[in-house]
Amino acid sequence: MRHSDKEQQILSEAVRLFSKNTYYKTSVREIAESVGLQKQSLYHYFRSKEDIYFKLVHMVLTEAVDKLKTVVNSNLGFIEKFNHVLALHLYHLSNNRGKVSLQLFMNRDMFDSTRRAELRSLEKQLDQMFRQLLREGQISGSFRSDLDIPVLQYVITGMFNYMERWYSPNGRLSLEQILHIYKILLLNGMLTPEQKTREQG
Amino acid sequence: MRHSDKEQQILSEAVRLFSKNTYYKTSVREIAESVGLQKQSLYHYFRSKEDIYFKLVHMVLTEAVDKLKTVVNSNLGFIEKFNHVLALHLYHLSNNRGKVSLQLFMNRDMFDSTRRAELRSLEKQLDQMFRQLLREGQISGSFRSDLDIPVLQYVITGMFNYMERWYSPNGRLSLEQILHIYKILLLNGMLTPEQKTREQG
Repeated sequence: MRHSDKEQQILSEAVRLFSKNTYYKTSVREIAESVGLQKQSLYHYFRSKEDIYFKLVHMVLTEAVDKLKTVVNSNLGFIEKFNHVLALHLYHLSNNRGKVSLQLFMNRDMFDSTRRAELRSLEKQLDQMFRQLLREGQISGSFRSDLDIPVLQYVITGMFNYMERWYSPNGRLSLEQILHIYKILLLNGMLTPEQKTREQG
Repeated sequence: MRHSDKEQQILSEAVRLFSKNTYYKTSVREIAESVGLQKQSLYHYFRSKEDIYFKLVHMVLTEAVDKLKTVVNSNLGFIEKFNHVLALHLYHLSNNRGKVSLQLFMNRDMFDSTRRAELRSLEKQLDQMFRQLLREGQISGSFRSDLDIPVLQYVITGMFNYMERWYSPNGRLSLEQILHIYKILLLNGMLTPEQKTREQG
């Protein structure tokens, strides 16, 4: 197995164990054993348990930013772009539930200042992607322009992040149904009256 | 000073110290000293640091439930009631920022099962207050009836809870301005077309 494949295997086993038993109660030895390594050999891949945690959060944030960037910077019409971003982010969260929980509940003190700054920068980029999209909505005349963009972004982020607490893949509603409600709420909440007539027509 | 007054003093000093230095880095001795007690005397009021934490979370949840209950069960017209609930909860969160953070980030494992159940029940009551309100909105014909009530409640709760991360009393926008945006978003998002015309008229 290639070095990078083993690294990926360690990361997926780690996120599984952290989700099952919490980060604090999972030992490096357990992670090593679950991928068929001695504890000492695992240190060829990661310096420490914190190092694994950092990598997982870094991965999930980078993936979210990269995905959104492609759509936000695309040539799609605005409403199509907005719907696409909502869907993309919803599926991203649901496909990465373990890593997203680690991100939302991380204790930043466990990382050094360089790593804290790196994660902070990714989080800011994610916020900025949503703000750029909302700004495009207001400039293009799709969204009413009297609503403060950072607050709108926080509402959207809060709505998505809170899913960590209640969403289950085995739950009563499918992701498509949840997405449909989010779209109705947000579009009705932000579209200008003219746009609403057009969307319904 | 009466026993209950001293208890209140301990609780407010504890929340101040937890917010400043985190719960884990605050010792019972520090809490005792900040209210002019010996560590041993503080145990006349609270059994442990966990006991103080529990009391603070219990207080903030009970207060939220009681406040909302009064308005949700009142005879106000629906839209007025809805706006009143949003305002009340927003001010509740902003007046209790320290306790709300403790609630949102509590490690439930520190409490025994009776206390965990007690907190869970209060959280459920809070969710139920919002759901009862949303149901009234749909039944009275104010809100469109095709949106799932638990999901709407999670959107509202998520929007409010996320403020813990970004809202500051010294921030760019006042609470009134934030409330205004929340009302526009939620009412436009949920009102039926007929109601919208009436509200704007």
